[in-house]
Amino acid sequence: MSTFKLTVLALSTCMAFAAHAESVRNVPVQPIPAVEITEPEKVELGKMLFFDPRLSRSGFISCNSCHNLSMGGSDNLVSSIGDKWAQGPINSPTVLNSSLNIAQFWDGRAETLQEQAGGPIENPLEMGFTHELAIEVLRSIPEYVEKFETIYGTSDFGIDEVTDAIAVFEETLVTPNSRFDQWLRGDDDALTDFELEGWELFMTSGCVACHNGVNLGGTSFQKMGIVEPYHTLNPAEGRAAVTGIDADRFSFKVPTLRNVELTYPYFHDGAVWTLTEAVDIMGRLQLGRVYDDEENAKIVAFLKTLTGEQPEIVLPILPPSTDKTPKPDPWEE
Amino acid sequence: MSTFKLTVLALSTCMAFAAHAESVRNVPVQPIPAVEITEPEKVELGKMLFFDPRLSRSGFISCNSCHNLSMGGSDNLVSSIGDKWAQGPINSPTVLNSSLNIAQFWDGRAETLQEQAGGPIENPLEMGFTHELAIEVLRSIPEYVEKFETIYGTSDFGIDEVTDAIAVFEETLVTPNSRFDQWLRGDDDALTDFELEGWELFMTSGCVACHNGVNLGGTSFQKMGIVEPYHTLNPAEGRAAVTGIDADRFSFKVPTLRNVELTYPYFHDGAVWTLTEAVDIMGRLQLGRVYDDEENAKIVAFLKTLTGEQPEIVLPILPPSTDKTPKPDPWEE
Repeated sequence: MSTFKLTVLALSTCMAFAAHAESVRNVPVQPIPAVEITEPEKVELGKMLFFDPRLSRSGFISCNSCHNLSMGGSDNLVSSIGDKWAQGPINSPTVLNSSLNIAQFWDGRAETLQEQAGGPIENPLEMGFTHELAIEVLRSIPEYVEKFETIYGTSDFGIDEVTDAIAVFEETLVTPNSRFDQWLRGDDDALTDFELEGWELFMTSGCVACHNGVNLGGTSFQKMGIVEPYHTLNPAEGRAAVTGIDADRFSFKVPTLRNVELTYPYFHDGAVWTLTEAVDIMGRLQLGRVYDDEENAKIVAFLKTLTGEQPEIVLPILPPSTDKTPKPDPWEE
Repeated sequence: MSTFKLTVLALSTCMAFAAHAESVRNVPVQPIPAVEITEPEKVELGKMLFFDPRLSRSGFISCNSCHNLSMGGSDNLVSSIGDKWAQGPINSPTVLNSSLNIAQFWDGRAETLQEQAGGPIENPLEMGFTHELAIEVLRSIPEYVEKFETIYGTSDFGIDEVTDAIAVFEETLVTPNSRFDQWLRGDDDALTDFELEGWELFMTSGCVACHNGVNLGGTSFQKMGIVEPYHTLNPAEGRAAVTGIDADRFSFKVPTLRNVELTYPYFHDGAVWTLTEAVDIMGRLQLGRVYDDEENAKIVAFLKTLTGEQPEIVLPILPPSTDKTPKPDPWEE
C-alpha cells in the first residue's frame, strides 16, 4: 500500500500544479475548475443526442435514461434497465465530472468519453441498437443533418461525429462550488466542525490514498477488497478484462466521490444503498479500520459536502422524425 | 353530422368569447392564450414529480418517459413502454395543451388533469406502482415533505396533493405563437399561400367540424370511422367503456392537432406514422372525401404551421432518497 500511496500523492500533486493556478489548500484534493465552453453549438448538438431515445432500438432509451441529469447523472438503480427490460451487468457510474477520470467504465476499457459514448448504443443489454442504424435515423432528420454539416463540415457524418458531440456535451457536466470546494479555496466557514473532522478522518485514515485529485477518485484502478475480500454475486472481473493480467482481477476504477450523496446505490455491483454502510465497508475491506458510529457519521457528513452545483440543463427540443426515418419497434423479436 | 356540426360550432364560438378578449379572425379555431403562472412553487413541485421516476415501481419510469417534453409531449411510439417492458394498450396522447381538452385519456374517463395524473402511477402496464407506495417514497424525502408542507400546509399529504401539483405543472405546458396563431391574430404574412390553401381546405371540407376550438380538437368525442369503418387490431372500445352506451363504441376524444408534426404516430392505435397517410385516412373515413396529392400536401403544410413554441423546461434536480426510502427493485416478481 505505502509505495502506491506515495505514487498517487505525487501524481495528484502534479495534477494540482498543472490544472490550477489559483491558491488552494495544500491537500491531495483540488476544487473543480469552472468549465469553459468553447464550442457552444457542438455542446448543444451533443445535448440533443444525449437526450434522444432514437439512438436506441426501442426509441425509448437515451443516454439520460441511465445517466439521469435530474439524479446526479446516474439512475439510482442497482444496475441499469436496458432494451426489453434487460438487467445491466454493473452499476451505472455518474456522468457528472466524468471528464475528470483517467478512463471510462468501471474497468476503464474506454480511454475517452468519446470512446465510451459508442458503447451503450450497441450494447444489447443497454440501448440495443447498432451504430449503422443510429446513423441512418439521424441522417433521415434534416435538422440533425444541417447541424452536423455546420459543425463538422460534412453531411456524411458517422458514429465518430455523434460520439464526439456527446463527449463534448458531457465535458460540460461538472459540478463546481461544492461546500468542500469553497473550503478548499480558503473559506473556513464553508464546513462545520463536524464535517471538517470527517475530512480529517478521511485524510488521516487513508481514504484519500485512492479518493484523491479533483474528482476524489477516478485517478487509479484499485482492488475491491484489499484487507478483506468483498463478497458479491456480480460476475464483473474488473480491470483484468481489459489488461488480461490476473493480478488485475477485481480491480476497478476508483469511483469519484463528487455528488456521492446523489449517486446511490454504491460500488460496482450497486449492492449498498447508504453512505453509512458504504463507509463502514470501505473502512474494513480497504483499510482494515473499523470506524465507530461517530467517526462514520463524520465521514458521511464530509461526503455530503461534496455535492456541487448541478448543471442547469434546458431540455432540448428534438427535431421530429420524417417519413424516411426507420421506425422503432420495441417489441419485435 | 350536421346537427352535431352546429352544436360544436356554437360551443367553440362560446369558448372563443369566453377565453379571448383579443381581436382574432372570425373562424372556429382560436389562438392559444398565453399561460399565466400564479403558483410558481406548485408548478416547480409538479415539475419535479413529473420527472421523478420514483413514482414508478421500477424507479425508472416517470411521467416524462411517455409524455416526453423533448418530443412534443409524447413518446413517438405506437403505444407506450411500461413496467417490465409492458406494451401499453393505446397511443400516448400529448401532454402539451392537454389542459385545453374537455377531458383526459382517449376515452375521456378522467374529467381533469388531476384525475388523469393518478392513473398511470398505478396502472400495471405503465408505472406499475400503487398510490400508497408512491406516497411512502415521497414522505421519506425531507425536501419533498418540506415543499408539500409549504405549498399545501400539511406534511400529511397524499395522492391528491401529488396529482394536484402535477396537474398545475401540466397546465403550464402550452405552446402559443405557432405560425397559425400569428395568422389568426391578423399577421397575413405568417402563412404561405400554400399553407393558407391547406387551411381553407381543412375548413371547407369539414375537418374543422371536429378539429376546432383553441386546441383544434379536444372539444368532443367522435366515432373513428364514420363514413367507412376503421380497421385496427387495437381492442380499445373508446367512449363506450365510460358511458356504457353501445352507440359510443369506437368513439374517441378528438385529438388536438396542435404540434401534430411532433406527435406521430397517429390515431388511438398509433398505426399511422405520416401526416400524409393520416390526412388521407381521415378524409376518406370521416368525410367520405378523397384528397388528391396536392390537396393532401396543402393540408399537411397547414398542419405543420400548428407547431407552437415548446415550453422551455429547466430539468429539475431531484432530492436524493434517504435511508428510509423504499428501494426500487425492477426485476422482482
